[in-house]
Order: sequence, then structure tokens, then C-alpha cells
Amino acid sequence: MTNATQSKTELSELGEFGLIRRLTENIQLKNESTIRGVGDDCAVLDFKQKKVVVTTDLLTEGVHFNLMYVPLRHLGYKAVTVNLSDVYAMNATPKQITVSIAVSSKMSIEALDELYEGIYLACERYGVDLVGGDTTSSLTGLLISVTAIGEAEEEDLVYRNGAKDTDLLCVTGDLGGAYLGLQLLERENAVFKVNPKMVPQLEGYDYILERQLKPEARKDIPVLFKELGIKPTAMIDISDGLSSEILHLCTQSDVGCRLYEDRLLYDNQTKKMAAELNINPLVAALNGGEDYELLFTLPISNLDAIRNNPDISVIGYITDKSEGVNLITAGMGQAIPLQAQGWNPIKG
Amino acid sequence: MTNATQSKTELSELGEFGLIRRLTENIQLKNESTIRGVGDDCAVLDFKQKKVVVTTDLLTEGVHFNLMYVPLRHLGYKAVTVNLSDVYAMNATPKQITVSIAVSSKMSIEALDELYEGIYLACERYGVDLVGGDTTSSLTGLLISVTAIGEAEEEDLVYRNGAKDTDLLCVTGDLGGAYLGLQLLERENAVFKVNPKMVPQLEGYDYILERQLKPEARKDIPVLFKELGIKPTAMIDISDGLSSEILHLCTQSDVGCRLYEDRLLYDNQTKKMAAELNINPLVAALNGGEDYELLFTLPISNLDAIRNNPDISVIGYITDKSEGVNLITAGMGQAIPLQAQGWNPIKG
Repeated sequence: MTNATQSKTELSELGEFGLIRRLTENIQLKNESTIRGVGDDCAVLDFKQKKVVVTTDLLTEGVHFNLMYVPLRHLGYKAVTVNLSDVYAMNATPKQITVSIAVSSKMSIEALDELYEGIYLACERYGVDLVGGDTTSSLTGLLISVTAIGEAEEEDLVYRNGAKDTDLLCVTGDLGGAYLGLQLLERENAVFKVNPKMVPQLEGYDYILERQLKPEARKDIPVLFKELGIKPTAMIDISDGLSSEILHLCTQSDVGCRLYEDRLLYDNQTKKMAAELNINPLVAALNGGEDYELLFTLPISNLDAIRNNPDISVIGYITDKSEGVNLITAGMGQAIPLQAQGWNPIKG
Repeated sequence: MTNATQSKTELSELGEFGLIRRLTENIQLKNESTIRGVGDDCAVLDFKQKKVVVTTDLLTEGVHFNLMYVPLRHLGYKAVTVNLSDVYAMNATPKQITVSIAVSSKMSIEALDELYEGIYLACERYGVDLVGGDTTSSLTGLLISVTAIGEAEEEDLVYRNGAKDTDLLCVTGDLGGAYLGLQLLERENAVFKVNPKMVPQLEGYDYILERQLKPEARKDIPVLFKELGIKPTAMIDISDGLSSEILHLCTQSDVGCRLYEDRLLYDNQTKKMAAELNINPLVAALNGGEDYELLFTLPISNLDAIRNNPDISVIGYITDKSEGVNLITAGMGQAIPLQAQGWNPIKG
């Protein structure tokens, strides 16, 4: 367990402008579309004839993360990748981010340096420029707001609303891992609170911990589509859980679908932790969220292009709207209507 | 004094997706550059050959606003205009915003509706489209993060770093009002806390209250420059106080300047409240902040174009860097080096 607010140098020693300078002085802009980054009233960008995509996410302490067990470096990294995931879900390429933070005066400068190390690592790995932001104080916890900006040729853009009857329903990677990683962290944190001398039992679960703490966005998938010469009819990223995302996609495309329980992939660690905690991995996949995989639909004529691809599973197909949005159970083949979960403000 | 968290309908009755739908269902996109707004993984924008400018600001309860005396409608309006001010400071035109909010479950849906009324009113008045955002819960107070996106022809953009020796230093409007409006609100709030039956004494101060609670961004100024056929060599908006902004402009332009105390304009209400509170209006102008006027430099050959313009005051001129950044006092004509203030994280 980390101690994120461990005080070393107080923020007040730097002041706002000193803090901004410290956090942004090493930025090296890498994209041609970034004309001017941090340091003026606005960043200046140039996308020429390309279309511009914009998305934003807000992460708040105590709701989206718990600094008792989330290392700040990972948190910075995740705050960026969850936004980039939305850009890839448009079949676009992220190019810039802005990052705003509200921090309590309890947080040391060294702690903020760690947070920004994670942010810059993500910028490096995903080829995006940090071009702006705001730093302010918070009377309580840490809050991070990231906006990501990307570009795409008009003909490459994929929306949520293009799925057609008979299209294949596909997903990248495996599901449920991030949720079970969170359950493991919560369990060990509860043990730690009772007895701080207990060593957390995290061995053998590195994959699901990383899925939760330091998720990657699927930047390989738009590239793969190009290579395969295919383009999804609809796409969305999986942040709230498969169930909720399928419902968004079907509602916006005005279609129904059949999702097959036995086509969903789980990592071995996901299955093992699910068994240990007596959680059905299907529930983790449908309602857990934070997997940051891509859910998309393809014309059935594209089946040969993807059927042996290890990164893509066909998990069902699109139907007429009248048939509803159903999970087809593994054993009995029963059709069960999917329900949205999503965030509920009272739980926060 | 308002009661912003007056509970009517609980947020939990709607859930996240219901809340987003309610807050965004009446959006009518008005800009040609907005291809797709709220409702997909990203908004999609098209600026053709124009340059794109991006800025972002974070407002937190207890630091930037006090819901004891800030009406939510005004707060929503201000959260937008303070961002647009940064776009105008680039001599650009704002076109889109994203708005993310973190709200405590104490806040009612009706309270959020009020906040968004203010946001939409600003969108209407400034011709911008709300194209995205995020809603999440907060364990404590309200937090609003706005990102504004604008466009400009490359040749129209004005940065902070172009001021030249002998340029005129100019400012729009009058200064110090927002700070004195805040002092008035704080005073009346303190009285109210001691005796809730006391009626707040706000009459006769509508102008400075509006400067604080519902500031406007100077969208008329880029238009005026076009009409006059002039373009500033450098520009910045006044959010942290004139002193800090002049220092930014001079540092980034690598110049010095002479600012004349007797050239600064104050509204009568600003002067009256300053006298009542025993505050020097000069201090309010230099260090108070939140005036959201524009500070800019012009070649001295442009003097005739602006000298009789009621919206623009010439307050000094740019010098060689070696002369420093000085305030020239009204009576004695003493040169006093300007000091930055800005935000300090310990103050909260």
C-alpha cells in the first residue's frame, strides 16, 4: 500500500506559476498538428483538412480512485489512457491532451511529480502532446480532468450508430479483469486497515491488477483495421461494462442483438479471482466496467478477415430491433434481456 | 443569499445516463464546425484550414466560488465565459465547449438544471456549442471543468510573446470591479452567518456584483480590431490581476514596460466600494483578478485608430527589457517594480 500524501516539499513553496513551470518545463512537442503548447492563453493546433475529435473525463478521489492503494504514477497514466480509449473508439488517432488538476495542500510536490510522470509516460507511449491545463487547489481530495483531442480522415470515422441487422458483434481482448483487480485491491485494503502489519496478498494477480491500475487503450486496433482493409459499422469503448455499451450501441443504431455468453473470453487470473471471491466472471464482464476494450460491429462479409485474429472475438450478432438486446446463456441457450448499469450518483 | 443545495429531486432518481440525457437533450448545434456533439465516444469537429485553439479551466467550490452567495445560474455562465475569455485573448473565435462536473449527492436535479441554464445562456450569447463532457459524483463539493475550442485564421492569431519596445500597452474596460464585488459579497455573507435575518446590503453595487458573479468575455474586441484594421503584437486576458498578466506578457516577449497608475480606469462603484472598505483600487486592479478584460500591445503607429475609443485605454508602453517592468506612480512619478501575485495553493 502506498502513502500518496507523504509530505516532503509543500506546494506553497512554489506557488501556482512555479508549480505549472515545474510540471510542464520538460515537455517536448512531437506532433506536427501541435503549433503551440502550454504557455499562452490557448494551445494552437492545426489539423489541416482532417476532422477533429474531442473527449473529456473527470476522475475524483474517493469515487474513481483510492489513494490508499493507487500509486500516483499509475493514476496519471490511467487518467490519460481512459480518454485516449474514447478517441480510438472513433477509429481516430489521439494527438493532444489537456490536464487539469485540483489538489489539496496536503499533497507534496514530489507526489505531484509522480502523478505527472505517469501522465508523461502515457503521452510518450501514445504519441500525444500535453498542450494545456489548469492547476488549482481543492479543499478536499485530488481531482483530475483530462481532455483528449484526436484526428481522423472523414471516411475513417466510426460512430456508435451504424450497426446493421446481421452485422457481427465483436470485442477486443478479454473482459472482467479490471473489476476483479479492483475487488482484490479493496479486499487487501480492508485487511490492511484492520492490521497495517499484514502484507497484502497480491502475488499471481499482476495481470488483473494492471488492468485496474494501469489500463492501456487499444491503439493497435485502428491500425489493425487499416491493415485488414476493414472498417467497423459502429464502435464504442468499454468503460461502463459490456452490457451498458451494447445497449448504447444498439439504441443509437436502432437495432437489437444476440450476445453469446459462451463466446466471452476471460483471462485465467480473472477466472481464478472470480472463483475466490464467488463472483460470476460474466457479471464482472457485463457490469464491472473499466476494461477499455473496444466493442464494434462488422459486416458478416468481414468474418474471414478477423476469425483467426487473437485480438478479436466475435461474441454475437446484430438483429432487427424487434428482437431486443439479449444475452444467450451458455447452457440452456435462454435469451435474457440485457440491462444497463452505469454510474449511479448515490453510490459515489 | 441563495440556498443552492435546496433538495427537491434526488440525483439518484435519474442515474448517470438519465442525468446526461436531461442536461443535454435540448442542445441545438449552431456552428458549421460542429459535425457531431454529445452522444458518441467523442465529439467530431471540422475546422477546415483554420487553426484550432484550446483552453481549459477548473472551478472548485470553496476555492473559486461559495454557493452561499453565488447563484448556480451565474456560476454556470461564469464557468463558460472565463474560458471564452482565453479564446478571445488569442484573437480567435470560440466555437465549442465541453463541460464536466463533479457533484455531491446533496445537490438536487433542479439545482443542476439551474447550473446548466447558465451554461446554455452563455453558449447562446457567445455562439458556442456544448459538444461533450462528463458527469460524476463528488464526495464533497461541486467542481466544474470547462474546455473551450475556437478557430482563427493563422494570420489573425495573437500570442503573448510579440510585444516590442515602443509598443503601446493597452487594456479594455475598467479594472478592479470583480475583486471589490467579491469583497462586498464576502462581507455580507459574514454578516448573514452571524445573523441570518439581516438583509444583505447590496443596493447600488449591481455593476461590481455582476463583474464578480457573471463576468462577460470581450467578444467585441477581436471584431473591433478587424474593423479598425489593426492587430495587437501581443495579448493576454486578465484573470489573475493586471500585475501578473503584464509580467507574463513582458517575460514572454522579453521586454520591459512602464505602466502609468493615473491611466487606469475604475468604475464609480469600484471606487465607492474601495473607499468603503479602505482598499486602494490600484491594488484591486493589480492583484485582484477576475476582470476578464484584455491586455494587449499595439505598434505606436496604431495610436490614432484607438485613442478615442471608449473601450480601450492606453495605460503605458513597452520598453527594453533592461528597464524592467514598472508601475509609474500618479503623484511622484516613481517607478516601482511590478510583482506577480497569482494563485497560492496554501491559501486554498
